[in-house]
Amino acid sequence: MHYARNTWYVAAWTADLDMSKPTGLRILGERIVLFRTESGKLVALEDRCVHRLAPLSLGRCEGERLRCMYHGILFDSDGAVSEIPGQDVIPRDAKVRAYPVVDRHGWVWVWMGDPALAYEATIPATIGTDNPDYLMGHGFLDYDCAAHLISENLLDFSHIGYVHADSFPQGDQMAKTHADIRPIDQGIRYRRWVENLASDAAGFPAEPLDHYMEYDYVIPGILMMHIAGFPLGTAKSLEFGSPDLANAVRDLTFTGQAVTPIDEHTTRYFFCYGMHRDFGTEQMIEPMMQLVRKAFAEDKVMIEAQQKVIDETPDPRMIPTSHDRSITMYNRMLDKMIRDETERQAVA
Amino acid sequence: MHYARNTWYVAAWTADLDMSKPTGLRILGERIVLFRTESGKLVALEDRCVHRLAPLSLGRCEGERLRCMYHGILFDSDGAVSEIPGQDVIPRDAKVRAYPVVDRHGWVWVWMGDPALAYEATIPATIGTDNPDYLMGHGFLDYDCAAHLISENLLDFSHIGYVHADSFPQGDQMAKTHADIRPIDQGIRYRRWVENLASDAAGFPAEPLDHYMEYDYVIPGILMMHIAGFPLGTAKSLEFGSPDLANAVRDLTFTGQAVTPIDEHTTRYFFCYGMHRDFGTEQMIEPMMQLVRKAFAEDKVMIEAQQKVIDETPDPRMIPTSHDRSITMYNRMLDKMIRDETERQAVA
Amino acid sequence: MHYARNTWYVAAWTADLDMSKPTGLRILGERIVLFRTESGKLVALEDRCVHRLAPLSLGRCEGERLRCMYHGILFDSDGAVSEIPGQDVIPRDAKVRAYPVVDRHGWVWVWMGDPALAYEATIPATIGTDNPDYLMGHGFLDYDCAAHLISENLLDFSHIGYVHADSFPQGDQMAKTHADIRPIDQGIRYRRWVENLASDAAGFPAEPLDHYMEYDYVIPGILMMHIAGFPLGTAKSLEFGSPDLANAVRDLTFTGQAVTPIDEHTTRYFFCYGMHRDFGTEQMIEPMMQLVRKAFAEDKVMIEAQQKVIDETPDPRMIPTSHDRSITMYNRMLDKMIRDETERQAVA
Repeated sequence: MHYARNTWYVAAWTADLDMSKPTGLRILGERIVLFRTESGKLVALEDRCVHRLAPLSLGRCEGERLRCMYHGILFDSDGAVSEIPGQDVIPRDAKVRAYPVVDRHGWVWVWMGDPALAYEATIPATIGTDNPDYLMGHGFLDYDCAAHLISENLLDFSHIGYVHADSFPQGDQMAKTHADIRPIDQGIRYRRWVENLASDAAGFPAEPLDHYMEYDYVIPGILMMHIAGFPLGTAKSLEFGSPDLANAVRDLTFTGQAVTPIDEHTTRYFFCYGMHRDFGTEQMIEPMMQLVRKAFAEDKVMIEAQQKVIDETPDPRMIPTSHDRSITMYNRMLDKMIRDETERQAVA
Repeated sequence: MHYARNTWYVAAWTADLDMSKPTGLRILGERIVLFRTESGKLVALEDRCVHRLAPLSLGRCEGERLRCMYHGILFDSDGAVSEIPGQDVIPRDAKVRAYPVVDRHGWVWVWMGDPALAYEATIPATIGTDNPDYLMGHGFLDYDCAAHLISENLLDFSHIGYVHADSFPQGDQMAKTHADIRPIDQGIRYRRWVENLASDAAGFPAEPLDHYMEYDYVIPGILMMHIAGFPLGTAKSLEFGSPDLANAVRDLTFTGQAVTPIDEHTTRYFFCYGMHRDFGTEQMIEPMMQLVRKAFAEDKVMIEAQQKVIDETPDPRMIPTSHDRSITMYNRMLDKMIRDETERQAVA
Repeated sequence: MHYARNTWYVAAWTADLDMSKPTGLRILGERIVLFRTESGKLVALEDRCVHRLAPLSLGRCEGERLRCMYHGILFDSDGAVSEIPGQDVIPRDAKVRAYPVVDRHGWVWVWMGDPALAYEATIPATIGTDNPDYLMGHGFLDYDCAAHLISENLLDFSHIGYVHADSFPQGDQMAKTHADIRPIDQGIRYRRWVENLASDAAGFPAEPLDHYMEYDYVIPGILMMHIAGFPLGTAKSLEFGSPDLANAVRDLTFTGQAVTPIDEHTTRYFFCYGMHRDFGTEQMIEPMMQLVRKAFAEDKVMIEAQQKVIDETPDPRMIPTSHDRSITMYNRMLDKMIRDETERQAVA
């Protein structure tokens, strides 16, 4: 598999974990078991018993430890075996891999690379379901496709007017004009003004405003996007530069999204979406979520169909368009990172 | 895949196509999108956008053109790209393959080979659902098997008395005696008299007649069969030769069937069946279709099971019987055609 | 596939066979058709017609013979073709393989190896549903796993306290102490006393007794187990040796189980379980079966999950514990048998 490893992947929504028992999941094709100990520590271990390879995610939390429920082998939170029933000696190599894991912004982040390089400070400063300023809904979807096809969808919003022709009002304006797209650390920044747009965040008709959309898309696949309405004329007065979000007059929304490869053929897509408290109420969340769930379903149909065509094409070749610039920019960064990791490993 | 290409394959029932939107299908493992333009022209294109390989069958018909609904690339009916949203220049190679396609006898026929050789005159002169002389039902079934297993079933009617022991009255007479089978252009002709048969077209008891059955089976898998009842003694008086169908006294029926490989493992089987207007009414169609659907279900169970056994047999070897003569005759023609195509391609 | 061939495999429960028509099944990846002739003889043939490889299990029983219902080829009970409709001459090699087959102890046993070595006397002397001394229920389950994972589960009962924590009362005593395990002909014998156990055969509370459990597990995967309750103190008075089952005072039960590889990835697991007539009534059978079905479902979840982890582990390596002794003992016998068979074949 061709993926970056020295980076934080979103593994789960913290709120969705059943903390009374372990949770099994897969990232980059590796089976991982997540559990929280009695003292509240979050642990991520290789989900494979050293004894006969049963999954520890079928196991039982016991205090600070996790017991395999096939033959009772007990694991410490660092992955070392601390008990083998019916046997006094524990082999030195009786140990599973432990992954660095952090609970932040409502997400569980797992570090898939060298643990010595796992700095928490590199976790993107996104806004999550735990942020008091935003009223948010959240969820996830599993796609039958490689992760890069979802990233490429999120890096080129010219698809909005076609894939989401029924759901979003911006229409083919997003395709006929170009956004401001620049490289940033670990990804790209996308900015676009749509002047005089006559609909609100949920796509319902409203008095026209200048709408501003800005998002960062960073490795390994984290999207953080603000949209807001400003008084007519704001875009021009700022010469189409970045506004101060504090000056928004309607619909300041945020969506955080994460694309996590389950394996080469399957991807988990996490998302939250919500309104700043100054511009909405709890009652608005469900209709807003309904809209994005409809839109994500539209993306899913297209992207999974695209994957099927690619799989059946002996020598798939793409003809890029001008809108693919952001994709190229991001993919080069990601490829360089993977190449660097491979070289570092070859040296070591 | 080992298939003839320079021949017309049945792609769909014309009546079943939703002409307000494109239809995606596969023939010989190739994805094809069918659509009808505003002016009524039927078009068959490669179902794969030049940009990022999304299927055009998820696209939108626009006048004489088809738009990919991922990023809005617009295609002419000859497969050339005529618009890329947000971009002025269209690359010269931005073009998908266009397949010759003809709407005839109620079927959509697609030419899978060299377009320069696609003569419409070579489409078999079958009787379809659009023929005013026949009252017809139609349908199709997808089989989990290679196409040749269905062809071989249709080329050897000695199976009637066993596979269809419950459905057809002819019994093992079809296995214990031999039909008259001869090579014709592109296939074989099968003729058989059953004297003194006491049942009608739908298999229900009726006064005994001499029944005559004749069918052609031609490349790439088109069956065209007439059955009719004649006065007792007709078979002998004609020395078991071909009768004039205009002299039939009961149950002059026709069935047209087409075997189209979806890919190496899946096959679409199209069929229509009906009664000549002189011998029946609209009310007879549904019971007749019920009978053939029951019989096709019997074939499907046997043939799909046969495919499974073949797949699990390391070195499958068959012992032919005398009834396999028609299969051998047809397969030799088909093999020669495929060989000739391969050689012609090697020369070119 | 790495399996012993010169041994009797359980193919079916005799009581479950529909004797009016043939039954198709697979053992070691080979398709076999079972049928009983008019005179009552049980026959097992290769399930693959010599003609076009249709499965004979879709055929029709005719007296002492079986007819393929594709084109009517008729087979004798020794596998030889005795009729080809429409043809006088039968090729000498028109013959399918016949497998030695025996109906005994309620099971149909099929010999997968050299027929010359198929001695019925080597069928294990198990207690089946036809035994008048026991009141028994029976069934089977198909597992998505290799057969050896089920054998290894049955060879190490230290899993009882974990996998079956909810179902069985013995708890982790089975893991914390060791049973008496010895090699016997073709397998291992397992014996264990649990002193002062306060529950009955079905796991419900009861006055405490000394419980004794003994089973043989023999090639190719047959488990035969007795459990019974004895007066408190019996274990010590026998110095933990084998008791006379005739002295049991409560719950003398027997379970017979058979692990038959369908192919490398799928296994059929046959089981019966019941109470000796002296200790129970017909009414006890269904609750007892409910308990074991619940326990087998627990095993199935664990073992199928284990198989998935193994399949995804590039170089699976196990760290054995002291409880794996019986597994190692049995696997060595089985490996030796397979090695001997391979060598004998190489010589021949």
